[in-house]
Amino acid sequence: MRIVCQKSELQRSVNIVSKAVALKSPNPILEGLLVSTEENNVVLYGSDDTLSIKNSTKAVVVEEGKIVLPARILSEILAKFDDCELSMYTEDNNMVMECGHSKTTLCCLDAEMYPAFPEYDATNGILMFAEKMVSMIDQTVFATSISEDKPILTGILVEIESKSTKMVALDGYRLAIREENIESSIDHKEVIVPAKSMREVARILPEDESDVKLFFGERMMSIVCGDTEINTRVLQGDYIKYNNIIPDNFITRVIVNRHELYNSLERASIMARQTKTNVVNLNIDGETLTITSNSEVGKAREELDINLTGKNLEISFNSRYLLDVLKEVDDEEIVFDLNTAISPCVIRPISGNSFLYMVLPVKTSNTNV
Amino acid sequence: MRIVCQKSELQRSVNIVSKAVALKSPNPILEGLLVSTEENNVVLYGSDDTLSIKNSTKAVVVEEGKIVLPARILSEILAKFDDCELSMYTEDNNMVMECGHSKTTLCCLDAEMYPAFPEYDATNGILMFAEKMVSMIDQTVFATSISEDKPILTGILVEIESKSTKMVALDGYRLAIREENIESSIDHKEVIVPAKSMREVARILPEDESDVKLFFGERMMSIVCGDTEINTRVLQGDYIKYNNIIPDNFITRVIVNRHELYNSLERASIMARQTKTNVVNLNIDGETLTITSNSEVGKAREELDINLTGKNLEISFNSRYLLDVLKEVDDEEIVFDLNTAISPCVIRPISGNSFLYMVLPVKTSNTNV
Repeated sequence: MRIVCQKSELQRSVNIVSKAVALKSPNPILEGLLVSTEENNVVLYGSDDTLSIKNSTKAVVVEEGKIVLPARILSEILAKFDDCELSMYTEDNNMVMECGHSKTTLCCLDAEMYPAFPEYDATNGILMFAEKMVSMIDQTVFATSISEDKPILTGILVEIESKSTKMVALDGYRLAIREENIESSIDHKEVIVPAKSMREVARILPEDESDVKLFFGERMMSIVCGDTEINTRVLQGDYIKYNNIIPDNFITRVIVNRHELYNSLERASIMARQTKTNVVNLNIDGETLTITSNSEVGKAREELDINLTGKNLEISFNSRYLLDVLKEVDDEEIVFDLNTAISPCVIRPISGNSFLYMVLPVKTSNTNV
Repeated sequence: MRIVCQKSELQRSVNIVSKAVALKSPNPILEGLLVSTEENNVVLYGSDDTLSIKNSTKAVVVEEGKIVLPARILSEILAKFDDCELSMYTEDNNMVMECGHSKTTLCCLDAEMYPAFPEYDATNGILMFAEKMVSMIDQTVFATSISEDKPILTGILVEIESKSTKMVALDGYRLAIREENIESSIDHKEVIVPAKSMREVARILPEDESDVKLFFGERMMSIVCGDTEINTRVLQGDYIKYNNIIPDNFITRVIVNRHELYNSLERASIMARQTKTNVVNLNIDGETLTITSNSEVGKAREELDINLTGKNLEISFNSRYLLDVLKEVDDEEIVFDLNTAISPCVIRPISGNSFLYMVLPVKTSNTNV
């Protein structure tokens, strides 16, 4: 192989595909990137057992070839080069990289040993903006389970109907639903994608209006955006019927400024964190929400103006579960729908159904049942 | 106690004195800050067994008092408040902090239990700019020893003469000397200050032309800058006679661009780091310096233009020792003075004596003795 390319472009490409490469793998070849030439491009592949990523970048291909390079070292070297026209060629089973007065020689692994890259079926997919995909992931992924007790809950459910696409996550304490109106030729399709893959997808995709296409195979989902193709394994099994657990009616409705509530909860959670339970108490009384927290080292009290419809209520939460929601949502004002101190709280936008969060309260010694 | 102060100013003060406060101390009162009032100021104190810091900030003192507050929590709370006029008052052995609609109550500890703050003798000191002090510390502290084998080497030697002040550090593999022409009434004074204290001093002092005064006591050094007073324990014992170990004559003198050498060494050290020894080889041949490094995963080669006086030489170094020096020095070009592949290398400025570094080479299988 012999190519000439721009250092900064190759570096960008290496950083993208490296997201699928494990630092340490039982199979050392998976610590490498497959580098190959394809017309006027150099194509990089990285993969682990869950995710595989392909990215191509422009290059002058003088001589074709295919080789595996150690991902971490390659990335470190490119980071230290000034931007330059980089000349790369194989020599005695090594890859030589020349840039100005710098010459680096990297031991290669045999490309024949590298696993085949998955092929996707491009006939039946959906199309959306990259920034929408990123937002849907960011606003749900935190509610996936970190416990392997129910492996299905470690993934995000992607639910596609002909007029809308939903992402859903739940971990037994909270539920996150994010919906976008997206037209597609798919009648109904459900896949459960590992949270780990989704986090990497959100990091790789640009937060702009670039087109993203999603394709669905038997055991995988493919995400294609520009020069990048991401394939992720999907989880097998049936997801929980989450619609059945969302309450229909509410006794108490609170409309509150999201930013103010976030800041108040953050301050109150400093004390809450000193205890193991991380509990903050919310007292909804008329047009005032009072948040309190207690610990051995002290206590906090925060007051906020709210808009209340319905009954007053005292209820306690794990502050982190509320903060996770408030941090990701963009709306200036949001709605809290509540019933009793032991029934779930539903958080939604003032209008529309772009998101719905449900958080279970914490039962404390003060909880009135 | 009852005071009113600006949140941002108190926060700045808390952050300064917290640098002397341990996260965990066998004596819990030392995890706190002593807060006291003094005319129109609130004065904060923090200390551990090595360092004690005092800072005062303006406040409206409504009622005098003295109390100890938990440092970490106080700092976390202040970081989460918006800037505001903060009202603080004691109530039932608690400190109440009010800011807008936020009220935080912190359990206090008894100020009587807090150790007395050291007093310094202000009669015999030296004066310098804060930025000079920071630069002297930054350019020497990395060469202090991290091993407790010779405790004296874990400190920086501060050597004051009537016309100059030096800071010196050495760890058995390298030596750093930094000198400033500072006039003082002190004939000769040597103290050895723990590196830990010096690092905090460099973090606290502003990098500008603020006046810093240094005072010397029996077992401590005091650094006074504006509203901040830092007292550090000094190490007991005699420092190594470092002047005796610096070679006088040189066979090889190389003048090199510092920035270029730093970048080349950084790239070469990626390969060097893959081995345990971290070795880079320098081949000085005419007007070219060639740096090479080898490891199982590959090799690097870098070429630089140099100005050589004297003989060619091949010599190897631990790349980190050279990088540590090149990173801290500001000069565009610097001088390397060398003799043989097994004798120390001296690094100095093109003119003047503001710094001198000495680094021992590494003996490799290729070393010609």
